[in-house]
Amino acid sequence: MPKVILTNMVMIEDRKNNKVLVQDRIKSYKGYSFPGGHVKGDESFYDSAVREVKEETGLDVSNLSFCGIIHWLNKTNEDRYIVFLYKTHEFKGTLLEKSEEGRNIWISLDELVNSPFTNNLVDYLPMFLDKGYGEAFAPYTIEDEIENVFFK
Amino acid sequence: MPKVILTNMVMIEDRKNNKVLVQDRIKSYKGYSFPGGHVKGDESFYDSAVREVKEETGLDVSNLSFCGIIHWLNKTNEDRYIVFLYKTHEFKGTLLEKSEEGRNIWISLDELVNSPFTNNLVDYLPMFLDKGYGEAFAPYTIEDEIENVFFK
Repeated sequence: MPKVILTNMVMIEDRKNNKVLVQDRIKSYKGYSFPGGHVKGDESFYDSAVREVKEETGLDVSNLSFCGIIHWLNKTNEDRYIVFLYKTHEFKGTLLEKSEEGRNIWISLDELVNSPFTNNLVDYLPMFLDKGYGEAFAPYTIEDEIENVFFK
Repeated sequence: MPKVILTNMVMIEDRKNNKVLVQDRIKSYKGYSFPGGHVKGDESFYDSAVREVKEETGLDVSNLSFCGIIHWLNKTNEDRYIVFLYKTHEFKGTLLEKSEEGRNIWISLDELVNSPFTNNLVDYLPMFLDKGYGEAFAPYTIEDEIENVFFK
């Protein structure tokens, strides 16, 4: 039976300084990412996002709005890796300089888009920018080689 | 390892007559439901919704907008049953009078809410009505006995 992995990712906006919070990741894959991680136990998807942000950044986020789903599909075995996407501009607490995942950094969306370190995060930015998409569907045959991202 | 079941459900609106399409279900559970079913093979969630509507109603739907997720969680074994929710007012084709699931009927939302046959569909209507929710989280301990629905 194909596997289904459930995860989350959160774009935190500092509207005063017009920046977003990224991790400069050193684990499992390199490059910039928004904080997030796996859905665990008996959590709701929303609560899993709040918990992961707290663990990785030290920040308490609230009033998250749902931005849709990234849907990675392994066409060979039909395993799916789902990322529930959220964003918020409401946060409090002291930012951890780094977590196990890497350093936490505030940068502008322009910097993020133009950085050589964005990895594939930038491919999914339309999901966070109120374009009306519900799903970024990214099927692949070879592990980690996405052929196309279809916004639906 | 807990199971994750992926499904979809679509509210089709006839804006001219101010009605929505429901199935009067005779299979697996009784009562009104919107058309939908399981995500299969290498489908995107969006495409699975379009296919299920076609199979169950004969209609070709387009321009679906994503309305969020119903998330049923079995607290005992942590199995999850996920429903990706969509709506559209764009459809064409000839409506099938019935499918294996039951008869297809156009009714107003008022009729739906006040019908004794709504089953639990009415509990999830806020998801379709642009209230800003991303998730209807419904944990339970006893099969089919939802304790509460948390809109997040």
